[in-house]
Amino acid sequence: MKSKKVSESRTTTTQVVYPNDVNNNGTLYGGRLLDWIDTIGGVVAKRHCRSAIVTASIDSLSFLSPICQRDIVNLEAWINYVGRTSMEVEIRVTSEDPITAETSKTCRAFITYVAMDDEGNPKEVPRLILESEEDKRNFAMAQERRNERLNRRHLEPVEW
Amino acid sequence: MKSKKVSESRTTTTQVVYPNDVNNNGTLYGGRLLDWIDTIGGVVAKRHCRSAIVTASIDSLSFLSPICQRDIVNLEAWINYVGRTSMEVEIRVTSEDPITAETSKTCRAFITYVAMDDEGNPKEVPRLILESEEDKRNFAMAQERRNERLNRRHLEPVEW
Amino acid sequence: MKSKKVSESRTTTTQVVYPNDVNNNGTLYGGRLLDWIDTIGGVVAKRHCRSAIVTASIDSLSFLSPICQRDIVNLEAWINYVGRTSMEVEIRVTSEDPITAETSKTCRAFITYVAMDDEGNPKEVPRLILESEEDKRNFAMAQERRNERLNRRHLEPVEW
Amino acid sequence: MKSKKVSESRTTTTQVVYPNDVNNNGTLYGGRLLDWIDTIGGVVAKRHCRSAIVTASIDSLSFLSPICQRDIVNLEAWINYVGRTSMEVEIRVTSEDPITAETSKTCRAFITYVAMDDEGNPKEVPRLILESEEDKRNFAMAQERRNERLNRRHLEPVEW
Amino acid sequence: MKSKKVSESRTTTTQVVYPNDVNNNGTLYGGRLLDWIDTIGGVVAKRHCRSAIVTASIDSLSFLSPICQRDIVNLEAWINYVGRTSMEVEIRVTSEDPITAETSKTCRAFITYVAMDDEGNPKEVPRLILESEEDKRNFAMAQERRNERLNRRHLEPVEW
Amino acid sequence: MKSKKVSESRTTTTQVVYPNDVNNNGTLYGGRLLDWIDTIGGVVAKRHCRSAIVTASIDSLSFLSPICQRDIVNLEAWINYVGRTSMEVEIRVTSEDPITAETSKTCRAFITYVAMDDEGNPKEVPRLILESEEDKRNFAMAQERRNERLNRRHLEPVEW
Repeated sequence: MKSKKVSESRTTTTQVVYPNDVNNNGTLYGGRLLDWIDTIGGVVAKRHCRSAIVTASIDSLSFLSPICQRDIVNLEAWINYVGRTSMEVEIRVTSEDPITAETSKTCRAFITYVAMDDEGNPKEVPRLILESEEDKRNFAMAQERRNERLNRRHLEPVEW
Repeated sequence: MKSKKVSESRTTTTQVVYPNDVNNNGTLYGGRLLDWIDTIGGVVAKRHCRSAIVTASIDSLSFLSPICQRDIVNLEAWINYVGRTSMEVEIRVTSEDPITAETSKTCRAFITYVAMDDEGNPKEVPRLILESEEDKRNFAMAQERRNERLNRRHLEPVEW
Repeated sequence: MKSKKVSESRTTTTQVVYPNDVNNNGTLYGGRLLDWIDTIGGVVAKRHCRSAIVTASIDSLSFLSPICQRDIVNLEAWINYVGRTSMEVEIRVTSEDPITAETSKTCRAFITYVAMDDEGNPKEVPRLILESEEDKRNFAMAQERRNERLNRRHLEPVEW
Repeated sequence: MKSKKVSESRTTTTQVVYPNDVNNNGTLYGGRLLDWIDTIGGVVAKRHCRSAIVTASIDSLSFLSPICQRDIVNLEAWINYVGRTSMEVEIRVTSEDPITAETSKTCRAFITYVAMDDEGNPKEVPRLILESEEDKRNFAMAQERRNERLNRRHLEPVEW
Repeated sequence: MKSKKVSESRTTTTQVVYPNDVNNNGTLYGGRLLDWIDTIGGVVAKRHCRSAIVTASIDSLSFLSPICQRDIVNLEAWINYVGRTSMEVEIRVTSEDPITAETSKTCRAFITYVAMDDEGNPKEVPRLILESEEDKRNFAMAQERRNERLNRRHLEPVEW
Repeated sequence: MKSKKVSESRTTTTQVVYPNDVNNNGTLYGGRLLDWIDTIGGVVAKRHCRSAIVTASIDSLSFLSPICQRDIVNLEAWINYVGRTSMEVEIRVTSEDPITAETSKTCRAFITYVAMDDEGNPKEVPRLILESEEDKRNFAMAQERRNERLNRRHLEPVEW
């Protein structure tokens, strides 16, 4: 299987916040944003492994500032790390005031996707070619996050 | 401010997976499930603090097994922990086959909400009365997760 | 076929009224409420008969008071009566102000569902075990409503 | 206030059943049909009274046959009866196979709407001019249904 | 194949603008209106050819005036012209103030649909019987528009 | 008012076709695609004029090939031409098979937007700086299309 660069699956997308998309505080409804984030994250994962995928976990997602109605929303996503069958995708969301053009950082998420074969079993994914210093730093930090997650498993017991 | 028991805000809800709700693998679409999870988590937080709230972060969310079309989906949510202005809510999702009545654990999430006053500033929330052994264990583990999150901040730098 | 208790299929659910859900009077859109009512009513029917079902008729549904944006909506549903292949489900809807915690009775509906086999033909359903005085009163009144409906058939001629 | 003819508010509408609109039996989802029915019924009521309205009750709604994906759905609605502030609207739904042009009667509903003034209080509506024999028969049967509903109030106690 | 009259496929429909349907200017969202237009245009085409169809092109669509929240929207559509396998449908949209009953012309569109056989290939459609002077004028103008479109092909090169 | 380059408002976006988005032929529903096209076209127009806008007309929109469920959809949009208060935006849509990575040209649209001031009146927009040969060719062809549209006005009489 041919290794792939981070840039080969990097994806950007743009949305607009309509009245239909706001919550009872008048800001972008969380569920809608999560939708957009999971969709673009999934596109990155599929572009890397070119197979079906499933969302395995949202490892961390912080809302830094609310997004207002009328705002343009820019989402950028790329792969930080690949395991044997899993891929960690980072998604950054920026809101843009359509009139003043001012932008704000509004959300950042780390989502893990797993590649699936036709029987629905996990499937190997291409290795990641780390080109830039940023690629290498992202990979190293994702690996550390992954280790910490494994260490804190006892705090989130799967059996309930 | 009067302290409140965990049981005073505990909430359950039931949904059904329609054709409208499935992804390209024929299972419940992630965005839809996140919607349901954030909605019920928010109800628990509002029932505890009886004020407006914002979703601050999804600290961890794992998809344990896919949910199929036709399945009945049961969500149960309660408060594990309160800080001065924040509340950690745990949401557990079980799917139920409508014909066989068989259930599967499908998803578990930890979401942090912050109470807001009328100016949109963080606002103090009632203390939590821990009645059962389970309440106490949940509180302790949430506190540990919170500490770990603070410790791993350098791995998810807010400034990007 | 084993008889079943009313409590075995009793179901509750909780929703929140978002801007997306209101009509031109700023209150919960009728179509959305009907959706929620038919979904939970269907869950009760499926939990009783554990087979596919169809909605046969809405026998009566009254809107007692409007539901406002931001309100939490609690729906509770249970079986009143079973015929050979049909089930009458009662659904009661209460709205809850998220800030004051005040609740109002807002809607009550009686819906008849029919169990279906794999060929789409009506299928026998389990008998109902009436445990409490309330179960017996509900059953008796449902039976009376059913008789009245049969008596007033000439007022709603099926052939038009 | 000028009286109005039945024909002045009579309304027809046409919809198409998309994959988005079907339930787990592959037929038109009940919630969607109820939406369409309440929308066209409301148009008829507004065209009669030319003021804001609320849906007061669905007095009876029968599903005669399922509507399939791809079908064209024709809805026709008109006023049967007016009280001082209320209007009974009848809605008939026919499905049409787009290829064979065959039509089936699929649903009939009787809904009561109440006219509202700007303060949200019930408001008088124009009297109904009954022109044809059909208008008169519809009016008489609606009046009888209304009487029966008042008589069976004890079977659907509003206080629960 | 039997020829058909324009009146045999003429279709009208009625919608209502809910809060859910408005854009950030508070008027009917373009995407929603396009949905309604394409749906009714498709019904006309299917009623003429009684087969599956695809939307081939929107040849021209002008928004003459905005449609406000609460407005009733009336759409009327009919066939202007048929080619061997294609049909030009004209759709006219009028908005109606529910209180004053005042109507405004708001949109007009010309859409070309193509009939498809079961293999997805273009399929011959019935000839059009032109009865009235208006039918003939519509046909002639559609033919002229079609010629102009063919002439301006170099201005919209399909290969990009 | 400062003139602006074409590249300053150029926008790309990425969507995925879910079961929710397909029509009765199993391909992307026209109304959904029109939604995506109008949204991204509007972003380009707002980024050029940094004010509110309205969609004035869809001048031409051709569907070259259907888009299948699961496909990734890439939309790219930019300004071809500006009048005093209007902007012609071109949108090109490409579908991408997520497994094979194969792409197809699927749709191209020309939409005219008008900038609006706070009173809802048309408002002057920045001139366009044409940098590349492509920019100049696009501008010239848009101008020709505009002239042709004015010439064929008699074929699409606004007064009906």
